[in-house]
Amino acid sequence: MVAKTAYNVAVLGATGAVGRRILDQLAQSTIPVGEVKALASARSAGQKISFKDQELTVEEATEDSFAGVDIVLASAGGSTSKALAPAAVKAGAVVVDNSSYWRMNDQVPLVVPEVNAAALKDHQGIIANPNCSTTQLVMALDPVYREFGLNQVIISTYQAASGAGKAAMDEVLAEAQARLLGDDMAELAHVLPVKGDKKHFPLAFNLLPQIDVFEEEGYTHEEYKMIHETKKIILGDKNAKAIKVTGTAVRVPVMIGHGESVYIDTGDEKVTTDQIRQAIGAVDNVIIEDDPATQTYPQPLLAEGKRETFVGRIRPDLENPGAFHLWVVSDNLLKGAAWNTVEIAQTLVEMDLVRVPADSTFA
Amino acid sequence: MVAKTAYNVAVLGATGAVGRRILDQLAQSTIPVGEVKALASARSAGQKISFKDQELTVEEATEDSFAGVDIVLASAGGSTSKALAPAAVKAGAVVVDNSSYWRMNDQVPLVVPEVNAAALKDHQGIIANPNCSTTQLVMALDPVYREFGLNQVIISTYQAASGAGKAAMDEVLAEAQARLLGDDMAELAHVLPVKGDKKHFPLAFNLLPQIDVFEEEGYTHEEYKMIHETKKIILGDKNAKAIKVTGTAVRVPVMIGHGESVYIDTGDEKVTTDQIRQAIGAVDNVIIEDDPATQTYPQPLLAEGKRETFVGRIRPDLENPGAFHLWVVSDNLLKGAAWNTVEIAQTLVEMDLVRVPADSTFA
Repeated sequence: MVAKTAYNVAVLGATGAVGRRILDQLAQSTIPVGEVKALASARSAGQKISFKDQELTVEEATEDSFAGVDIVLASAGGSTSKALAPAAVKAGAVVVDNSSYWRMNDQVPLVVPEVNAAALKDHQGIIANPNCSTTQLVMALDPVYREFGLNQVIISTYQAASGAGKAAMDEVLAEAQARLLGDDMAELAHVLPVKGDKKHFPLAFNLLPQIDVFEEEGYTHEEYKMIHETKKIILGDKNAKAIKVTGTAVRVPVMIGHGESVYIDTGDEKVTTDQIRQAIGAVDNVIIEDDPATQTYPQPLLAEGKRETFVGRIRPDLENPGAFHLWVVSDNLLKGAAWNTVEIAQTLVEMDLVRVPADSTFA
Repeated sequence: MVAKTAYNVAVLGATGAVGRRILDQLAQSTIPVGEVKALASARSAGQKISFKDQELTVEEATEDSFAGVDIVLASAGGSTSKALAPAAVKAGAVVVDNSSYWRMNDQVPLVVPEVNAAALKDHQGIIANPNCSTTQLVMALDPVYREFGLNQVIISTYQAASGAGKAAMDEVLAEAQARLLGDDMAELAHVLPVKGDKKHFPLAFNLLPQIDVFEEEGYTHEEYKMIHETKKIILGDKNAKAIKVTGTAVRVPVMIGHGESVYIDTGDEKVTTDQIRQAIGAVDNVIIEDDPATQTYPQPLLAEGKRETFVGRIRPDLENPGAFHLWVVSDNLLKGAAWNTVEIAQTLVEMDLVRVPADSTFA
């Protein structure tokens, strides 16, 4: 079988903040793109949206939308992905899905190309894009795990409003404006911390230690996603050695760009800070910003609009040899969502894996 | 010796954000206050400032300012405290100092009254108020240490702009306004992250993982303060059992109220989350806000203007029995500065310790 010269691509959820960025990243990718379809809910059908110099008309996404499509890039929420991804696979398309629905499915590779592109080889037609807080985290953790081992990882996140969508961003800006005018912010909170939850609180000039709904043991769903997805990506299926992963997810009044304060314990007293810095810096698309003398460290404002993951504040726990602190920042809408989704597709093209296996679980 | 019926109080640095709050908290304290002097630099002399229904005229602080003063509440920076605290002690006044200058001095108790009021007994005329990020932290750590032990503490802070003073708060508000108008924020940054450092970056809608200047090993001075002060307060001088303490300090675009994501390892697998919650909740002036079912957790906006320390998101590390997460929030200008300073003085009055020992190191 010869690699195609052009791939027809459908973007599902094309009108959302991530969907628009997927079209943008697709245009900048090395994928030889044939026809492009913009799919969304019936509500958005008929809207115009641009791709390169074309104007696309948004079509309603149905089970019949995928004839002739080679790659589906989906960012339309869990219930839509649950319903439509198998239909797309049955129609012969490979789906790269940005929702959480398929991520922990044993038949679905969960992929950050710089970390575990090899997991793509066994795909059954659906590949999952990890949660934004997980993607940038594993970019830094994986090389440490491979080279030195990892006993324990403890994460505190500083997550931007855009992780909760455009409505959350607009809400924070409206709250900030109210605060500057001396008006009450409380009545403006309708989306954050979680759209469907009972209570809403202002995020502007505030911190909300709740991302997604609460689950058992006092953890939020975001915290569980980060823990479980990190293990799936780094450990893969074959490696039995466990890593303890735990953490706290906090929403902060930043528009774009997640920060993560990460504590890693390699369990190896001989590992030096320079070795950790070199190992992480050797990962493709990781940029080390780490020079106290020039006040160089990752910041969300500096990471916005970039595809890379930025790592700094790398330093040892002075009382626990072999353990280190990292500060990791990335654009949560790009590496955390749109770009990683397109990058998975680009990697599938490079590896000539844009095909649904005949015996696919999902077909 | 009989306790005085009224104490003459001098507030040093009375015109600053913390100094004004010290006067306010002093007015609300149970200290029987006699005369009050407002002291500041020559630049501020002559300004009027209110205390209860009095109007005070700010006087220049000199070595001769302390005759007849019983208590000095100082919040004027390290170099002023270095120069003037011994002069005040020589004049017979007890100094409660909010700067970092005296904190690690072996002859100076470093006190959070709910935690280690007993350390006041041996004071030599100078008592230090801890760094804001330390004060709220030890309110939560101390009961855990006393009841269950503590092997390790790992902290990630989310610190408000007001910790860097009023100019930093104004700067963030100006940046936020510029961002809302679509203007460039970068040229507005002159104070943060650190007033005297070479580079300045916007904090509005951003995160700055630098608080205070960098020291050796890639740590900031703020991080070292948090580590060393926490140990001095919790361990005291008598207790030999070490606690490993480490962390990362990050400035966030919040006006007032520090958040702290705290990981504690008791090393005791049998300790339950309920025991941790009860132990911390039993501390005076700690309020547990911890109910996922009602989305109840500490937030800076809810803590602003309050003296208490708020603790929530208390939950176990599911893979490391005996280890737990906490989320701690407090008003950094009150419990983190002005109120704790006044509370120390109030405790000195209650314990009848407002006197300089005849053989004081500092007299």
